[in-house]
This record gives sequence, structure tokens and C-alpha cells, in this order.
Amino acid sequence: MTKEDLLNLRIDCLDKGFVRLVDYMGDDSAVVQAARVSYGNGTKSYREDRGLIRYLMRNRHTSPFEMVEFKFHCRMPIFVARQWIRHRTANVNEYSGRYSEMTDDFYLPDISQLRHQADDNKQGRSAEVLEDGKAELIMKSMADSQKASYDEYKSYLSQDLARELARINLPLSAYTEWYWKIDLHNLFHFLKLRLDKHAQFEIRIFAEAMAQIIKQVVPISYEAFEDFILHSRLFSGLEVEFLKKIVDTKKINEKALLDLGLSKREAAAMIELFTNKL
Amino acid sequence: MTKEDLLNLRIDCLDKGFVRLVDYMGDDSAVVQAARVSYGNGTKSYREDRGLIRYLMRNRHTSPFEMVEFKFHCRMPIFVARQWIRHRTANVNEYSGRYSEMTDDFYLPDISQLRHQADDNKQGRSAEVLEDGKAELIMKSMADSQKASYDEYKSYLSQDLARELARINLPLSAYTEWYWKIDLHNLFHFLKLRLDKHAQFEIRIFAEAMAQIIKQVVPISYEAFEDFILHSRLFSGLEVEFLKKIVDTKKINEKALLDLGLSKREAAAMIELFTNKL
Amino acid sequence: MTKEDLLNLRIDCLDKGFVRLVDYMGDDSAVVQAARVSYGNGTKSYREDRGLIRYLMRNRHTSPFEMVEFKFHCRMPIFVARQWIRHRTANVNEYSGRYSEMTDDFYLPDISQLRHQADDNKQGRSAEVLEDGKAELIMKSMADSQKASYDEYKSYLSQDLARELARINLPLSAYTEWYWKIDLHNLFHFLKLRLDKHAQFEIRIFAEAMAQIIKQVVPISYEAFEDFILHSRLFSGLEVEFLKKIVDTKKINEKALLDLGLSKREAAAMIELFTNKL
Amino acid sequence: MTKEDLLNLRIDCLDKGFVRLVDYMGDDSAVVQAARVSYGNGTKSYREDRGLIRYLMRNRHTSPFEMVEFKFHCRMPIFVARQWIRHRTANVNEYSGRYSEMTDDFYLPDISQLRHQADDNKQGRSAEVLEDGKAELIMKSMADSQKASYDEYKSYLSQDLARELARINLPLSAYTEWYWKIDLHNLFHFLKLRLDKHAQFEIRIFAEAMAQIIKQVVPISYEAFEDFILHSRLFSGLEVEFLKKIVDTKKINEKALLDLGLSKREAAAMIELFTNKL
Repeated sequence: MTKEDLLNLRIDCLDKGFVRLVDYMGDDSAVVQAARVSYGNGTKSYREDRGLIRYLMRNRHTSPFEMVEFKFHCRMPIFVARQWIRHRTANVNEYSGRYSEMTDDFYLPDISQLRHQADDNKQGRSAEVLEDGKAELIMKSMADSQKASYDEYKSYLSQDLARELARINLPLSAYTEWYWKIDLHNLFHFLKLRLDKHAQFEIRIFAEAMAQIIKQVVPISYEAFEDFILHSRLFSGLEVEFLKKIVDTKKINEKALLDLGLSKREAAAMIELFTNKL
Repeated sequence: MTKEDLLNLRIDCLDKGFVRLVDYMGDDSAVVQAARVSYGNGTKSYREDRGLIRYLMRNRHTSPFEMVEFKFHCRMPIFVARQWIRHRTANVNEYSGRYSEMTDDFYLPDISQLRHQADDNKQGRSAEVLEDGKAELIMKSMADSQKASYDEYKSYLSQDLARELARINLPLSAYTEWYWKIDLHNLFHFLKLRLDKHAQFEIRIFAEAMAQIIKQVVPISYEAFEDFILHSRLFSGLEVEFLKKIVDTKKINEKALLDLGLSKREAAAMIELFTNKL
Repeated sequence: MTKEDLLNLRIDCLDKGFVRLVDYMGDDSAVVQAARVSYGNGTKSYREDRGLIRYLMRNRHTSPFEMVEFKFHCRMPIFVARQWIRHRTANVNEYSGRYSEMTDDFYLPDISQLRHQADDNKQGRSAEVLEDGKAELIMKSMADSQKASYDEYKSYLSQDLARELARINLPLSAYTEWYWKIDLHNLFHFLKLRLDKHAQFEIRIFAEAMAQIIKQVVPISYEAFEDFILHSRLFSGLEVEFLKKIVDTKKINEKALLDLGLSKREAAAMIELFTNKL
Repeated sequence: MTKEDLLNLRIDCLDKGFVRLVDYMGDDSAVVQAARVSYGNGTKSYREDRGLIRYLMRNRHTSPFEMVEFKFHCRMPIFVARQWIRHRTANVNEYSGRYSEMTDDFYLPDISQLRHQADDNKQGRSAEVLEDGKAELIMKSMADSQKASYDEYKSYLSQDLARELARINLPLSAYTEWYWKIDLHNLFHFLKLRLDKHAQFEIRIFAEAMAQIIKQVVPISYEAFEDFILHSRLFSGLEVEFLKKIVDTKKINEKALLDLGLSKREAAAMIELFTNKL
């Protein structure tokens, strides 16, 4: 895909939102280039580039990933924007309801999302949909309420009430939009938190859209992010001690580890951890 | 005032909000102490401390002001929180509508604030109140709408809809609360923007409350902030050229400037600017 | 220990450096307090506080740890300061060689530290000390060279060369000092990187000194940091798959895990991971 | 100039340093684009773009300038790097003396820079060059000392002393290099401080080089930066009161101000300030 193709990429999110890649600076080679300033080596082969990027990610040498930058145009409900903005290491220009009139767009969840409070997760929803037509009634109630709010808003504006006040009773489901610019390291951090199953479904949709886009710009870095961050698991000191007691050390050897896809360095670290042999 | 007294300070804001000082670290002497590490001098008199703080503020030597930290507990409408959070150099823990039930508190403007859109300020309200009972009707409409939203929210919860979804139609006028921690330099930057007449009235109220509180903790720094930032005016290069043409240089002399309250250094700079004499 | 005692704490580092706690704001209870704003609960028992802090640390809910702030006065060689300053989320006021004369203090390593380049670590030193009196000769050469540099510096100053130029040939081993202020979350991040065995020995000494100090201010948070960050190990997705193949699942049961000291929640997560049973 | 031409731009700085533009994202139109998201307007003419950028700069609406990003490759003496790195809102990858051998490059000032300590500026040098051949002697002494330091360094390395220790007596005049990435708003802040006459000459050279480069990428923004920041002057509240007393208000009229190049809005603000007429 050319840069021009990528810059046309726009992924619809929820019922009326989207993520669109406006611009970006750098790709996998920019990560390598920055790392090699520190380590003082010249350009190497693709295989070595991949190895370097994976080494950087595994060992949390994060600064080379800061050398790549993405700028997105996004449209999302305000309650999603409120979670999103908590990531402070990004640049933002948001549509202003003080300067401009708000549009008639509100998020109405898909009926399959109208679920019970989760039992095992104080902050989330369960897998269970509401029963007996309740969901349909709630959908209707939500839609009616959104329409009523917007009518009220328009009525206030028609009486020339200042926009900054007329908007205060619009619901958190109202859509807003912004330009959002962030470097790759901080975007990975955002994605780690917002692709997580504990993140609210609605923001996860936007995280997935951005992940889809950037994996085409930085495929090697994204794969390393998946392996070493997204699919990784942290074991506490106590848990590592427990693991040492329950693993069958006879099954640990370099060949088995390399066959799985680990690098020589990673295999050696696993062997050392469980057998104390270097 | 003792530290204990200050930590009981709580200022009500708008109809149901407040700002409360939870903790702080350092005061004017911490600014001086940090500056003196850079400049390598020992402790001096109050008069010299004041002079040093004013010198730092005037010349935008900002890092010593970063050595003082404030932590506030605040309660504000969500649309105010959305403006507030744009200041990224602070630490925040906000009440979560995913974990906990939202309370039945909404901002209803004082009737004197229901004003027309400003003519000369695209983002603000004018000085002019709505006429002919319109304001009363809008007040009633707002209150009714807030009540209806909350009833709807409670009804969704009673059907065990997940909290994170039940809340999405609550209005931007709903109150939220947070702990907010920031250093003095960045707080001054916040206050400069949010005490400004272009800031929305509702956030200005909170900025004023914080200003009231901190001026008791860092009186010298706050006074310097008022003189050199809040009440200052920036003239562009072109405007300075214009000033040079229209001032009566005969009226510029050191005595007049010192009598006004300028320091010797400041007086000399003014004289040099307009007369090219050192 | 009272706050006053803690504020007298000063730990010598290397031959002429130190770390001294100047001030701090908040302790373990401030972490709990901030978390409970988000989760909407009242104050609980010590046991529950500890459980909450460990839950926050384990799940990287980092913002409550940002509510505690530390300010240190530190003195260290310039090459250590250069590594230290790379942590950007802190406030700094450093002694200025432009304003003030540099002192006659240089870092001379202990002879036991004069070691070979490491074979297995491109950035570090090995465990092996230089042989055959080489170390003694290098020590002497370093000391002579430092003295010569300082004599040269003083000679330039005596000829009234501007301080900002006279200093440019002083060595990276010259001591500097600063006030350094940082929140607990970012300090933990600093400590994770700088207590690591790959960090240069000389900065590790300063990290250890700060760790000694803060564990007396925030004992519960520090213990959680040790368990879940410092002594933890991250396994990549591939490595977790490998672990699943080599563990003896018969040895995994709640009692064994609780006996080790894991919480019920942590034990359940381990059991689920390896047996797919909830 | 095309983007390709700009990316070949490299400006030599001091005796052995340089600044080179590696990549950038966005230009003046990206600033306008971001601002128009907030204000909700479509694309306008060049004249309106220029007016908008100047309005943003004048009123310190800084976020749209954060939407442009620059990445430089720079080579500078370590004492310059130490001042530079104090700007924390940038991304950095620096050459590492732990991983790689330091090169034999040291900054030797031009003889015209060997000046006396300033009388009126505690941190800087005066305009006065050292007299009577002193400068020549100091130059020679500096060069000899740099050579001796490097010989010593090489000798330590030849004895296989770890690189991270061998380097500690290299002088602050040794050259280092880095990739440095920053957004336009923060770069303007850097330039404001480092183009200032109080900044050390050696870092000013690098600031000027970056200014030369970026004014070709963002000509309108750079011009606005010059007018409203670089050449502006801040008058304190007291000073503004004084100005009001000494200006000849008869000379203030819109035509004179427009002729000077002020916008209508700026002219009106000047008239209001000094005559209290809108």
C-alpha cells in the first residue's frame, strides 16, 4: 500500500463514528534508524531490522518508537472522548460547542450490546443480553430522549441563548470529533489499555480501528507489540517462584524454544530462568 | 493561617460544586530554595526573596515554580471537566460512572447567566440577559429535562442495564468530581487561561476559587503572577514600534518608574527600550 | 519514623554524592484516597487498603500513585545526571556552571569497579576486575587528569574568561547537584529502569538510595512495586504457550497458591490461565 | 522548495556540529486544518489562512501548532546537549558512550568568542575579547587538554576498561549526536528561549539553524512567531499603567495602525487599551 492509499483509510466505528488516518511520519525503518543512532551501527538487512525491533520492544527500549508519529481524525460519542482524553501524551484539537452548533448525532447502542451489569467486573457489562423485550424498550427510550434533548437545544438556540449554555443538557452520547496526534510508543500504550477486555466496548472499537490502520504502516513494530505486550503476561515474583516448582524442566531445551519462534537470546533467557544454566 | 487551616479551606462553586485544598507541598520559600540551587546562593532576606521571585516570574524562569505542588478535590459539571482536563500537565483521579452510580446532581445556571450569544466573541455569551420571561421558561425546561434524564437513568439501572451504558444519556450538566494535582507553574498557566474573560463563566468560577486558596499559600508568587502575567499585556513587534512613536520620552525617568513600584532593573529596561539609553 | 525524621534522611552515594529527601506530599493513604474517588468507596481497614494498593499495582492502575510526590536534593557526577535527566516526567533545578563556579569535586571510581567490558552486555562492565596493577595505574591517571582539568579551569577563570566557556573542558566525572521532584508512579518507573542490573552501576547507587528512603514513606506501595514490577517477569505470548505445555497442572490448586501468598483473585487467574477453569 | 529538497537541508553549526532535517509532518495548512476542526469552518483562502494563523499565535491558541512535527539529526558539544535536553517535550535518541566508542571530536571555540565574564549578566560573556594574546594561549591550552583526554580514553579502552567507565573523564566539549523530534508549538517555545540574547552563544547557533530550516516549511507560522513572540515585549500591569500616562493619544487612530500592518482586530484592541473606546 502506498502512503496515499493509507491516507485515504477510514474505518467506520459504532453507528456514526469513524477513525481516519490524516498523516503520519516514519515507519518501521524510522524506529531502526533512531535505535542505530544510540547503538552506533549502520543500516542492516530486513532480518536484522526485525530482530532489532523485537529486541527493543521486548526490553522496553521505548524511545525509538517515539520517533514515529500518527495523526487521526476521529468522531466518537462524548463519553468515549472522555476516556480517550485521559491519555495525556497526545495532541488534540476538538470540535467546540462554544464556537459551533452541535450536530444531531447521538450514539445508540446496537441492541446486542444492551447487557446486564457484569458480576465479575465492577466496571463492565456481562455477556448476557437483557431479556423479554426490555432491550427494545430501552432502545426506544434512549432514542426518544436523544431527540428530545436535541429539540430542546435547537429551541434554546432559536431564542439566541449563548451556544456555550444551550449545549449543557445535551447527553454524553452526543458525537464530537477531533484531530488526535500521538507517537507510536504512546499509541501502543493507549492500545494496550483500550484493546483490553476490561476497556469499555465502545472505545475498544476505536482502538481496533486504529490498530488495523497502523499495522499497515509499521507491520514489524505492530507484530512485536502483539507478541511482547498485547499477548504477553506478567507474572509477579511470587508467581515466578511457583512456576519454577511446577514446570517440567526436562521439556525445556533450546531446540524446542527456537522451533516455537523465540530468538536465541530469548531461548537462553528462558533456559536460564528455569534451570539456572546459561 | 496554619497549614491545617488551609487544608480545611473549601470554596463552593456554582450551585453544587466546590474546590477543596487536600494537600500541598512547598510555598514561596520552596521557589526561592530551588532557584538558589541554580544560582548557587545561600538564604537571603524576605526582601531579597521577593525580589528573586519577581525576577523569576518576569523572566519566565519557570522551573522553580514547578517545585511547589497542590492537590485539590473538586466537584464540577461534566462540560466544565471537559475544558479543565485539556490541561495535560496534571494528575487526575475522577469519579467513574462505570464503577459507581451517578448522583442526582445537575448544574442549573443562575437566571442572570442566561444570556444571548455574544456578538464580538464567537465562543461566549454577551452581557445581555434573555428578555420577557424567556429565561424563566428555559430554566424550567432545563430542570425538567435534567430530572427526566435522571429518572430514565434510574429506570435503566433498575432493569440491571450495565452502568457504563445506562449513563450515556445523562447530560453534560451532570456533576462529576476528581482529585487534581498540579505544580504551581502549570497551575499559573491554567489560571492565566481560565481567569481570562474569554474563558467560559462556569470554569472561571473554579479558577477564581483556586486562586483564592493558593494566594494564601504562596502570597509572593501569586502577587508576581498577577503583575507579570495576569495583568500584563504583550505587545507585538509592530506594536512596540508604534509605542515608540507615540510616547512622550520626556516623561520617562527612573524616579517616575521607581515611584510606580518598578524595580531598578525593570526601570532601566523601560528607559533603554524607549530612549536607547542604558 | 516521623515526617521530620524522614526529612533529615540523607544517604551518601559514590565517593562524593548523596540523595536527601527535601519534602514529600502524601503516603500510602493518599494512594488509597485517590483510588476511592474513582471507585466511590469510603475508607476501609488497613487490610483492605493493602489489598487495594496491590490490586492497583498489579493491574497497572497507575493514576492513584501519581497523587504522591517526592522532592530530593541530589549530588552526582555529570555522566550520571545525563542518564537521569532522560526521565522527562520530573521537575528539575540544577546547579548552573554559567552562574556559579564549579567545585573541585570529581568522581573517582572505587578500584573494585575498574572492570573489563562485558562480553554478554554491549553496554556494561563485566564482573572481572582489571589485572596486574592496571587498575591502580588507571586510578592514578584519572585522578591526575581530574586535577589538571580543574587547575586549567581555575586558570581560565583567573584570566576572567567567561564561566560558561571556562567550564567546557571539565570532565563528565565532575559533580553537579539538583533538586528533583517526581510523583510516585513515575519514580517507580525510574526505579524499575535504574535498579535493573543493566543500568550503569553508578546510577544504580542513587536509585537504591531513593528506594531506601521512599520505602519508609510508602511501605505498602513499595512492597507492591517489588512484587509486581521489580521482581516480576513478563512472558511473551509465545512463552506463555510454551509454559502451558511444560507445567504440571496437577500441582496447580488454590490452596498451594494462597499458601504462597497470592490473593484469591490472583490464584484464580493462575488457575484459569493454565487449566481454563474459572 | 520541495519536501525532498528540505530533507537534504543540513546546516553546519560551530566547528564540528550540524543540524539536519530528517523528516517532518504537516506545514502551515496543517495548523489551519486543525484550528478549523475546533471552529467548524471549511477551507478558506490564503489570506484568511494567514489571518487565522496570526490570530492563533497572538492569542496563544497553541494546540493547532502542535499538529506539525519536526525530526532533526543534530551533532553538538555535550554542554550544549545538556542545556537542550532540559526541554522535556521532545523525543530523543542519543548516541551512547556505553554502547559505542566516542569519536575524537571536541568543540574548540573560535578565538573571537573567548571573552570576559559579562558585568551585566551573571550567566554570560561580555562583548569584550581577552587581551594581549591571552586568547591564543587559552585556545592552545584547550586543544592540548582535549587531545590528552582523548589519548587517555583510548589508552583505557586498549586495556579493555569498560567503555562506560573509560569515558568519564572526557570533557563537556566532546561532541555527541541525537535524533530529536518535537512539535511546532514546543519548538517555538525552545526557539524563543534559545534565540534569546541571554542564551549561551553555542546553543543559539543551533537554534538559528533550526529556525532557518523551519521557516521554509511553515513560513506563515514562523512569521507570526517572529511578530507575536520573538519580537514582542511583555509589559507588566504597572508598566501598562505607565504607558497610558505617557502616550500621546492623539496619535492613535485606526489608519495609522493599519498602515503599520496591524489587523483590524489588533488595531481596535490598541485603541481600546489607550482610549477606552471600542
